Amino acid sequence: MANSYMKQAIEMAVANVRRNGGPFATLIVKDGIVIASGANQVTRSNDPTAHAEIVAIREACRILGDFQLTGCDLYTTCEPCPMCLGAIYWARPAHVYYAATHADAAGAGFDDSFIYREIAAPHDHRAIPMIRVSDELHSSPFDEWSRKSDRLRY
Amino acid sequence: MANSYMKQAIEMAVANVRRNGGPFATLIVKDGIVIASGANQVTRSNDPTAHAEIVAIREACRILGDFQLTGCDLYTTCEPCPMCLGAIYWARPAHVYYAATHADAAGAGFDDSFIYREIAAPHDHRAIPMIRVSDELHSSPFDEWSRKSDRLRY
Repeated sequence: MANSYMKQAIEMAVANVRRNGGPFATLIVKDGIVIASGANQVTRSNDPTAHAEIVAIREACRILGDFQLTGCDLYTTCEPCPMCLGAIYWARPAHVYYAATHADAAGAGFDDSFIYREIAAPHDHRAIPMIRVSDELHSSPFDEWSRKSDRLRY
Repeated sequence: MANSYMKQAIEMAVANVRRNGGPFATLIVKDGIVIASGANQVTRSNDPTAHAEIVAIREACRILGDFQLTGCDLYTTCEPCPMCLGAIYWARPAHVYYAATHADAAGAGFDDSFIYREIAAPHDHRAIPMIRVSDELHSSPFDEWSRKSDRLRY
């Protein structure tokens, strides 16, 4: 079955390029049923976060009415970038299946190794400067959260 | 000015907790004007990707009609998680300003150091299994992309 879902995702990614999207697509499967899919919409929707994985995760969660993908499998045409890998960890599917590798993506001009290196780098060595602003109230959102007895953890 | 934007973001994060959101907010500023803001909506909108930074980046890009935040500054109440840091690198703002640290967040139960460690770990050591599915067509989305003469890079 894994191969059949992956073939479907690959066909969706090819079709997405023909509709002026990026060459990536993702399916989310639960109990043998494809519950959501997504293709890269960055340039079409002017949304830098609209990678295939993010689009599919948002759609699957909308359909399930849950912010967790418990028991779901994610099929994606290429190894996820750091943003999408982070989203996967927040959504917590059971398994991630991928076909093309980072190296394949880099060969087509999609090199996310720069972002992987930046995430691992200390703040003062990053290409986008990250600057701490001191504010005596910086803890107040967390204080408010900690005082809230009906807070819903995620 | 940095402190005034940060105070505004912190107030927004406190207000968001009172409306049953997470304790995080982000402002995006261009040419001295706040063009977009976002507060964490994960549980309220059943969207695990709806962190403050992602909500604000999507909104700013929608307003600018662009998938890049060239010349924009991002003010966020807490150091970004790996998903949001990845989104920041894809959106490419000029600067990122933050107030609370990862350690402050961890103290309130938001520990993203696990995700930072997972992203740096090899596939076979990750808590969510990542499995390669071989498919002879795995390069076909990239081949289609490379053949497309009017492709828009992002």
